Amino acid sequence: MKMIGAFLLALLILPVCGAQNSSVADIQKVITDQQAAWNRHDLDAFMSGYWNSPDLTFFSGDNIAHGWQQAIDRYRKTYQGEGKEMGRLEFSELKVEPLATDSAFVRGRWHLTMSDGRTPHGLFTLVFRKFPDGWKIIHDHTSGE
Amino acid sequence: MKMIGAFLLALLILPVCGAQNSSVADIQKVITDQQAAWNRHDLDAFMSGYWNSPDLTFFSGDNIAHGWQQAIDRYRKTYQGEGKEMGRLEFSELKVEPLATDSAFVRGRWHLTMSDGRTPHGLFTLVFRKFPDGWKIIHDHTSGE
Repeated sequence: MKMIGAFLLALLILPVCGAQNSSVADIQKVITDQQAAWNRHDLDAFMSGYWNSPDLTFFSGDNIAHGWQQAIDRYRKTYQGEGKEMGRLEFSELKVEPLATDSAFVRGRWHLTMSDGRTPHGLFTLVFRKFPDGWKIIHDHTSGE
Repeated sequence: MKMIGAFLLALLILPVCGAQNSSVADIQKVITDQQAAWNRHDLDAFMSGYWNSPDLTFFSGDNIAHGWQQAIDRYRKTYQGEGKEMGRLEFSELKVEPLATDSAFVRGRWHLTMSDGRTPHGLFTLVFRKFPDGWKIIHDHTSGE
């Protein structure tokens, strides 16, 4: 009976663990895809990792951007404006932490290498929600030195 | 039958809504209590809003503090060291967003008023988890101008 109990328990628990592992892998893929999109200067593909909603929030330093459109506009101004460049982006120390079957948060470091040798860098916190079309960032908090 | 169906549905949904409202109120209280503790210069009471664990993380600018002890040490050094002061703390634009019955995140602004007239200020993102002894911050990301 104990063996059967353990087996039934495993049947109950395994799908939950499997779902969590798959969530972590899915979220990691969103972030890896964003890094690749940034480095080929494809801001639209980069932004597809974000929730396309006016309720998306983007905290940077002391500045709040509300909504997907404002976020991409700010990226365009900061990195694609006159005399600006996107540089080479690397994420590191990524830690994906599931909070529920449809929510998670991610901590990590960002590091840019510019053609003039500057290396702006800092930290980010991302809150993810699972939507019918996959995991999307609903809130981004970024800070630098 | 429709009426009974609606009634049964309400019975099913209402406790969920109630739990969410109570979560939001409980989390708001943690933050209000923290603000009050800060303003009476009680750093221990302020820190009781944080998960007392080495896994607590605290992002500030480009700096990571790991664990409750490191976080309180940094607060002591920054705000209670020689020639330092805690100032008067105010939170504003608080937005508590439940993610599950036992997790939520909070966005807001912080604003300090120092005796010399300086007013450091910025944004924060907090990730909360519900523990047997109540809601605690498990991750804090703070940034300023």
